[in-house]
This record gives sequence, C-alpha cells and structure tokens, in this order.
Amino acid sequence: MTKADELARHSTLGMPAYIAGTPKEEIEKKYGIKNTVKLASNENPLKVSPKVIEAISREAKNCYMYPEGTSPELREALAANLGVRASQIIVGNGGDHVIGLLCHAFVEEGDDVIVGSPSFRTYAINTAIMGGNLVRVPLKDLTLDPEGILNAITERTKLIFFCNPNNPTGTIVKKDRIRAFMRRVPERCIVVFDEAYHEFVADPDYPDSMEYVRAGRNVFILRTFSKVYGLAGLRVGYCIASEELAQTLGRVLPAFPVNRLAQAAALAALEDQAFVAATLENNTTGKEYLYGAFDKLGLHYAETETNFIFVDIKMPAKTAYENMLHYGVIVRPCDQWDMPTCLRVTIGTMDENKKMIDALIHVLDQNNQ
Amino acid sequence: MTKADELARHSTLGMPAYIAGTPKEEIEKKYGIKNTVKLASNENPLKVSPKVIEAISREAKNCYMYPEGTSPELREALAANLGVRASQIIVGNGGDHVIGLLCHAFVEEGDDVIVGSPSFRTYAINTAIMGGNLVRVPLKDLTLDPEGILNAITERTKLIFFCNPNNPTGTIVKKDRIRAFMRRVPERCIVVFDEAYHEFVADPDYPDSMEYVRAGRNVFILRTFSKVYGLAGLRVGYCIASEELAQTLGRVLPAFPVNRLAQAAALAALEDQAFVAATLENNTTGKEYLYGAFDKLGLHYAETETNFIFVDIKMPAKTAYENMLHYGVIVRPCDQWDMPTCLRVTIGTMDENKKMIDALIHVLDQNNQ
Repeated sequence: MTKADELARHSTLGMPAYIAGTPKEEIEKKYGIKNTVKLASNENPLKVSPKVIEAISREAKNCYMYPEGTSPELREALAANLGVRASQIIVGNGGDHVIGLLCHAFVEEGDDVIVGSPSFRTYAINTAIMGGNLVRVPLKDLTLDPEGILNAITERTKLIFFCNPNNPTGTIVKKDRIRAFMRRVPERCIVVFDEAYHEFVADPDYPDSMEYVRAGRNVFILRTFSKVYGLAGLRVGYCIASEELAQTLGRVLPAFPVNRLAQAAALAALEDQAFVAATLENNTTGKEYLYGAFDKLGLHYAETETNFIFVDIKMPAKTAYENMLHYGVIVRPCDQWDMPTCLRVTIGTMDENKKMIDALIHVLDQNNQ
Repeated sequence: MTKADELARHSTLGMPAYIAGTPKEEIEKKYGIKNTVKLASNENPLKVSPKVIEAISREAKNCYMYPEGTSPELREALAANLGVRASQIIVGNGGDHVIGLLCHAFVEEGDDVIVGSPSFRTYAINTAIMGGNLVRVPLKDLTLDPEGILNAITERTKLIFFCNPNNPTGTIVKKDRIRAFMRRVPERCIVVFDEAYHEFVADPDYPDSMEYVRAGRNVFILRTFSKVYGLAGLRVGYCIASEELAQTLGRVLPAFPVNRLAQAAALAALEDQAFVAATLENNTTGKEYLYGAFDKLGLHYAETETNFIFVDIKMPAKTAYENMLHYGVIVRPCDQWDMPTCLRVTIGTMDENKKMIDALIHVLDQNNQ
C-alpha cells in the first residue's frame, strides 16, 4: 500500500480494475502489424452512419460552448420513440457512466448489490467505490440465474444488475422467467435491466421490460448508442425509469455529462434507422455463418441474442488470442471472466468473420499438433 | 420525500443542484430573441480553433470504436509541455468529472472537505454524494482566505479545494501566501489547486503550484480545455499529481471517460498555440476596456486574473440579468452565490463587450428612474 493509498477511500483499495479491450491502434503498434480485424469489443462492423459524420461536422464549430447538461433534444427524441416522457430518461457519458450514477444515487455503504457472474465488470467497480457489498450469483448454463438471484436477496439488497442479454455470454432470460422473478423481487429492491444489446435480440420471448416501468416498479432500463448505433467512441448511454426514480437519479447527474458532439451524433444516429436495419441484417448473416463454422469445428457456443458469440475453443484462450494476432485478428479471451478456454468474438462483416475463422482454424491446428 | 428518495443514498438527499448557465439556444427560444451575446459561462469568445475543427472531422469516421480509456496520446503531449511524466496525469470528462473522481477516490463518509465560499459548486455536490462534510470558508475581500482555511482544518479534513483563480470572483491568492499556507497544511490533507483559469493569469506573483507536486506533497493541480482552448462543449479536464497519487486516483477512473472526438480535439487544441495567444490578447484588450467602462459607471469590480469579471452593479442582479436579455445580452447574476447585487460577466470580443456595456447602461438607467 502506497502512502497515497493510505489516504484513499477504504472501499476502493484492491478494487478490480476494468479490463478494456485494447484499442486496435495500440495492438498494431505493439505487434508491428497492420489492417487487423478487431472483433473484441462488440463495436459496429458497419462503422458509423454517414448522417452521424455529417452531424458531427455541422456541430464542430460550436464546441466552445458548454453542452446542454441534460441532453434535452436527445431525450425528447428517445421519449417519442419509446412512448415515455422525456422526464423518465437520464442520459450519461456511456452506459458505464449511467451504471456509476445508479451506484452514486442509491448504494449506501454496506448495501448489497447483486450481479451475475461473469457479467459486465463495471457493476463491481462502481459498487466498490460506494462501499457496497457485491454479491455474485453464478450463471447457469451460461445464462443469468433469476432463481439464484432471488435466493441471494437479503434485507440489505439495494440494486440488482440484470444484464439481459448478458455480457460476455450473449444469452437472454426469457419473458416468463422474468415475470416470475419480478413477482418475487421485493418492491424495495431496484432492478436494473442492462439492455445494451437489446436491439439485436431476435427471440420473440425476450421480455418487454418497459412493462415494469409502466407498472411503477423500481426498475431502470439501461440502453446505449455504443452498439447498434455505432457510437462506442462517443459515449452515450441512457436509462428509462419512472419519473420519480429518474428525478432521484438526476440529482447526482454532473453538470455536463454528455458532450456536444455526442449529443448531436446520437440524435442523428437515432434518425438513421436504415443504418440500424443494415447493422441488424449484417449481424443475422454473420451469426448464421459463424454458427456453421463453429459447428464444423466441433466447438460449443452459446446461442447469442447480441452482436457477439461466446465460444469454447477447448484450448487456452489467452494463447489462442495471442496466436490469432499474428493472423491479424483480435478477439477477446475470457480468462478475465474465469472461462479460460472461451473466446468472445464480435460478429463482423462477412470478410472479417471469414478472416477470423481462418485464423482460428490455424491456431486450433497449431495447438493440436 | 418521494418513494424513490426513500431508496436514495442518504447523503444525496437535499443535495444542492448545480445551476449551470442556460445554453444560449434555450434562452433565445424562451425569450423569442436571436443573435444574443452570451457572456455568462466564460466560454471562449474566439470560439474554436480551425485546427480543432479539422481534427474532429478527421476523427469522426472512427466513432464506432471505443476510445482509449486513459487518453495516452493526450497525456504524453501534456506531459511533454508540463515537464512531468504521463503517469502523473489523469484526464477526465471535463474538470468537473475530475473533481468527482477526487471525491470518489478519497472522501470517506464523514470526512471534512474544505472549500471557499462562494466557489465552484461542483465541489459541494460531489462531496455530498460521497457523504463528506462540506466546510465552507468565506472569502475575504472577494479572495480565498488561506488563513481561514487553515483554521478550519480538523482531524477529519481530507480534501481542500483551492480554486486559484477563484470562480466566481476571478481573484488569485499570491505566491507568498500560498507558500505560508502549504507550510502549515498537514501532510495528510490533500490540496487540490483548481486552476481552470490558469492560462489567463497575468500577475507575476501567481504561485507555481507544480513546485508542490515536484516536492512530493499531497497536491493535485486541476486544469481544463474548456476555457483558453475553447473546448467547453467537449469536456476535457485533467489533473497533475505525484505518480503515486495519480495511480490511486486512476483506480476510480471509468473505462472510457473521454470520448474519441474530445481526445482528438484536445490534442489539436494543444498544438495550436497561436489560437491560445490570440485568446489571451483578446482577453487583455477586453479586460482594459471593461475596467474603463465599469470605472466610468462607478461600479466596483474585482481585478481579474481570468476571462471574466465579477462586478457589483448595486441593483438586484437577477433583475439586471432579465432586463439585459431584452438587449440580447446574457450575463450571470450572482444571487446563486449569495451576492445578489453582483454579476459575473465573461470578457468577450470587443463587439460583445460593447454590446454588454450598452445593455448594462440601459438597465442601470431604467433602475435609477
């Protein structure tokens, strides 16, 4: 422990660091490679809508002015799309910022915060900052376990982060099980449905979590512009809740959380539904191709409702990751989630998917020699 | 208290909201006016460097990719300019975000946090979120009072926010008094020198706070791209400290705090020192003009080391603010800081300054009739 650490908030000591996907530029520099295909951070393979680029260029000259703190135009547009009031929406600097805000607003020292395990690591970091007590409920069959979560609820449970579809496995908990779950969750617990990948879900049995907002339950729904809208680099995430809950959350919102260009870009992205449709179509095609390829290779994978696939490659994932780099492909090894033989691969364009499968075949072959 | 508030972190109840300057667009819509001059949020009157606009346009196509979380290129550039190591710098989503991070990292429930009063309100909000105890030390002669701060230190004092130049008054505490102050501050207290306006300071007796970083003191220096670099809309702020302190602070840094366009813009802004020089020159000219105009009107003002002037107009500032709107000029009334007859006016271009003074003369005349 350094002297500086002696001054630190006790709860932040030994906090798990977020392990982000390394940016492509950095990996290329490190390994002296070029034109790599990055399928490691679930970024949009169709990149950015031309309408977003236009909106950014139009807004650039205004960057000397503070942004509107609560993103009113964007909230109005989202509200119209979602059939809620703008006052039910809080926009933050990416979904991870909204997760932070939820902890700032609700987690007292010693409160229990329940998360799936493995799930998105940002929950753990923000719970630790506020001195909350993280309760991890293991996945069952690579899927969040609502019954396990119910059994983990105590008198101190304040927040439940329910990542649906789940990251890093890509699976969903279906409507009926969510209904049964919500019937049994005590009113005083706040359920956060993290739906970062919501737009990719194809399963008709995916729950409509908005019904719990409409019913006045203590529920937040988390969405993002990072995935289907292709704005991971701009950090725009938001949540939807009752007006009352949104107001309580709004109290901890910083003065200027979302920058001008991000607000303008998100607004333009929302209007370009053709880009969204193309993204979804590419995803469906890629998913079918990758399922077929994994089947041929005899690899088990979780059926995904997202833009990534969680696949067990039956060899050390860290080694596979490093060896695939030499073929110009970046994927995400799942050892950080204690799944040391699994990869999480983003569904890319067909060219990217093929390049990834070729690399994987080479690396599996090497391993079997 | 709403039902939602019953679930909220106790320390956030009754928290003071940040009162941001209302964006120009919103005021124009509300009052049905156009082409207003906004001198209310200390934004850069020369707007944005053309090099920044170019950098943004160049980077826009990459917005589908996550940004680098720790802004490494920007930190390297800043480090080279400042003569420190990149590992001594933490970049956040605006200076107010860095203030939040400092509270997340260091403020335990019940810790004392000392601030000047009035000073930047973000200190109070973030202290409240973490359950810290805010200790306000009144200004003396519109200037932070180091002796008063020393007298307010207790065993529980963790952070001291020392805004120098101070916002909203624009005044500085000089080198000798800072030296005497730092000699008497206990080692275990962290002093945060908030130097958002640092580049505007003309007084040769302005302290070089970097000497305390070099001496290994528990000091953070806070700087921003919002003011002299004209990037208020993009939210880039940073702090400089010892490597050890920066590391402790870095532990609470979110995965992707600063968006891609903001990082690219800040880097370009840093390289355009001609824009900075022009901004400073415009500020000096405007300051002299406004001093002269206020003197003629018999109004007292605080000599400023920033891009704004704090002036006592001897009438209700709220009324003056509203009446000046009808002349197309937006300024900041200081009633929110309990100085109900004072305005904070940004130094604009000469045209803007003249328009503001004309409006002020009209409004003062109306009041005297």
